[in-house]
Amino acid sequence: MSVTWSHTRALDAYIRDCRAEFEEKLATLVEIPTVSMDPERKPEIRKGADTAVDLLREFGATAASIPTKGNPVVVGKLTTDPRNPTLVIYNHLDVQPAEPAEWGRDPFVFGRDGDRYLGRGATDDKGPALTALFAARFAAENGIGLNYHFLWELEEEIGSPNFESFLKGYRKNIRARSILVSDTIWIARGKPAIPYGLRGMQPAMLVLETGTRDAHSGLVGGAARNPVAELAKLISECFDARTGRVRIPGFYDDVARPTAKEIRNFLSSGFQVARFREAHGLKKLRTLDRKKLLQSIWTEPTFELHGITGGYSGPGVKTVVPPSAEAKVSMRLVPNQRPARMFRLLKSFVHEKNPDVRVKLQAGIEPYLGNFTGPYPDAARTAVKFGFDRTPAFVREGGSIGAVVTMRKLLGVPITFIGLSLPEHGYHAPNEYFDWGQASGGMRTFARYFSEISGI
Amino acid sequence: MSVTWSHTRALDAYIRDCRAEFEEKLATLVEIPTVSMDPERKPEIRKGADTAVDLLREFGATAASIPTKGNPVVVGKLTTDPRNPTLVIYNHLDVQPAEPAEWGRDPFVFGRDGDRYLGRGATDDKGPALTALFAARFAAENGIGLNYHFLWELEEEIGSPNFESFLKGYRKNIRARSILVSDTIWIARGKPAIPYGLRGMQPAMLVLETGTRDAHSGLVGGAARNPVAELAKLISECFDARTGRVRIPGFYDDVARPTAKEIRNFLSSGFQVARFREAHGLKKLRTLDRKKLLQSIWTEPTFELHGITGGYSGPGVKTVVPPSAEAKVSMRLVPNQRPARMFRLLKSFVHEKNPDVRVKLQAGIEPYLGNFTGPYPDAARTAVKFGFDRTPAFVREGGSIGAVVTMRKLLGVPITFIGLSLPEHGYHAPNEYFDWGQASGGMRTFARYFSEISGI
Repeated sequence: MSVTWSHTRALDAYIRDCRAEFEEKLATLVEIPTVSMDPERKPEIRKGADTAVDLLREFGATAASIPTKGNPVVVGKLTTDPRNPTLVIYNHLDVQPAEPAEWGRDPFVFGRDGDRYLGRGATDDKGPALTALFAARFAAENGIGLNYHFLWELEEEIGSPNFESFLKGYRKNIRARSILVSDTIWIARGKPAIPYGLRGMQPAMLVLETGTRDAHSGLVGGAARNPVAELAKLISECFDARTGRVRIPGFYDDVARPTAKEIRNFLSSGFQVARFREAHGLKKLRTLDRKKLLQSIWTEPTFELHGITGGYSGPGVKTVVPPSAEAKVSMRLVPNQRPARMFRLLKSFVHEKNPDVRVKLQAGIEPYLGNFTGPYPDAARTAVKFGFDRTPAFVREGGSIGAVVTMRKLLGVPITFIGLSLPEHGYHAPNEYFDWGQASGGMRTFARYFSEISGI
Repeated sequence: MSVTWSHTRALDAYIRDCRAEFEEKLATLVEIPTVSMDPERKPEIRKGADTAVDLLREFGATAASIPTKGNPVVVGKLTTDPRNPTLVIYNHLDVQPAEPAEWGRDPFVFGRDGDRYLGRGATDDKGPALTALFAARFAAENGIGLNYHFLWELEEEIGSPNFESFLKGYRKNIRARSILVSDTIWIARGKPAIPYGLRGMQPAMLVLETGTRDAHSGLVGGAARNPVAELAKLISECFDARTGRVRIPGFYDDVARPTAKEIRNFLSSGFQVARFREAHGLKKLRTLDRKKLLQSIWTEPTFELHGITGGYSGPGVKTVVPPSAEAKVSMRLVPNQRPARMFRLLKSFVHEKNPDVRVKLQAGIEPYLGNFTGPYPDAARTAVKFGFDRTPAFVREGGSIGAVVTMRKLLGVPITFIGLSLPEHGYHAPNEYFDWGQASGGMRTFARYFSEISGI
């Protein structure tokens, strides 16, 4: 099989030799708390961008940090020959928030535990970004005829609110023949997946204010409106938390069903309910039926409540009627649902059910559906098989990457997803990690992929 | 009118002379953070009890701190002549939690702003406790034929879980002819109220665990159960947050309706909806109808949600599916509802609607209904009229005092409520305060009350 590829021996030596360097660079990136959701982390975002520019330059690229109305986008061009085709490689360097108490350690101190690399952002998405960069350096130094244009975003975790305006201004600098995105998750260790579809998302905050300060539930209870309880009622009107069924009129109107072929691919992907539960720490599920479950996370929309703030949260029961409350919700969307329309549906439903509730819009993300056949999927299959000695499954993924839809719209070239994260790596969860097995296999995969597509 | 009472001149001089001493003692008590709900405040509770014992002794009483399985009860006997009748005076020295961020100052640093005394516990219930003690010292020194037996509890704010076992052991030391409770609130400044009924209460915590750690709503959303949303749904099944109507079967079965005479008293109490809203900082109410509103807070039971913890509570929308959630709820109860029965009803309702939810019992409080006619109410009316030059209204109160029901059961003597707090004093709310107008009028009222009942 792949052993006939001419770069195999050199690549394996390169990977062996670069491990310490990879770990050092990953540590540097992980220890910059680039939490895009936290307005107080702006200095860390700037530091992360500056560090990334230095890193790209160290690897032979020309690089810059391009300002936007929000966080900058880091760009880097690694050119082998202007006549070669260019691949855009998209990753993001911003991370989810992380609570030291939940981690039992500082999430922004890099940790090494055998082959594991611990820290917020290690797998989402700093490790994969770095893996692609290391593979590109190898490819550039070993005569593979491809140029690389890195786009490293710093607002992915907040829905990429400024990526479109960035790309509108910047696209004149890009001559892409295709795009590689490395920010997705396998079915399991040893079960690689190449997604060709993503869910979209529309988050929102529902805010209700009925007073100016905590009141005593003995003195006012019965007469005072209770904003936490009213939001609880409203959420229950939006969807049935037991079944997941959304009750907002029109919510399912635009949902495109997956094809029978897609369902067959899902079922033969190696997905196991027990491993899924274990990987995500789920004790209870809405269904244990494998087919239903796969559709519920990959091809069906959701309504989710992430938290209600405003009430008493200390020990015991403090019998207050709080003055205000905020529900943090989101809808995951599937083709052909549009975030803007879903937000309008939510807003008018809320207005009808409880006109005092304000609905605050957050940046939405369009769902994405690409191809799982053709030269790029074929190259990806060959590359993953070479890198990990396993044939990948073509599936959809339930997460959302805002920049993907923007890149399709503005660059108009094929997009391939080759992710390296595993379910147990803890995307968005405490004790996130990446590992050398996925990094080294990832370098093999990417180098081979670059070689395969250089001839397309 | 009252000017004919022989102690008037001496009392007014006493009150004038003792103001600095009153403020100093109140400062000492307020600056001990006796938060009974917080398990980490046990040392402060002990310090509060020891300080109270010293204070009672300084005022001429014999005093002790009586241990219970929880916090101690401070007792003090101020004896004028063993042949005189004894009045039990109940107050509590524990306080509600207080968040410095909400206060804009340290809640446990005593503040004086003109006639106002700021700090957690100033009006609930350290100020009234001290006012009664100052009045008792005057009465004892001025020949009023009454003995005093102070009971100062340190678990009132958590439902008095150990007061009954304390009183069972201690009651052999008490020869009470009647009881005075000073822990209630007026209709408004200048509108004194003497309550003869209190609502009871049954708090509970509803706990649901569906996972072991935060999961990513893109990766698991649709399949994973959402504990915050399921509790929101469950709460909405328990009651309608818009109307307040409770949906738990049997909830209203035992409710005793107020008499027509009671309603007439309520309506002539001087209660004004606008002042009620202002005093408690309520922008929105379930009803603006005065009669309905009075019944909703004084004679009708409630279901209340104080907060749901477990979800994301930081800035923005973090799209997690949390692993567990806890809803803090309580039911305010009216005669003849029983906390134990109401808890059983709640528990079986929850079990039927969502069997995975655990219902954690908290200490309940029985509702109370006494008399508003007879010699003690008459004495209270005379005393308040003397102390504040206003005729008090006989009303019920929506709050709950656990010790009251216990004292009625175990001591079996009449109980009178003469409170000194005003709605704007901020019971359980940020920036709680007491004031010299209520303290000085309270001393006049109590001294006269002691004189009136010494002859009953």
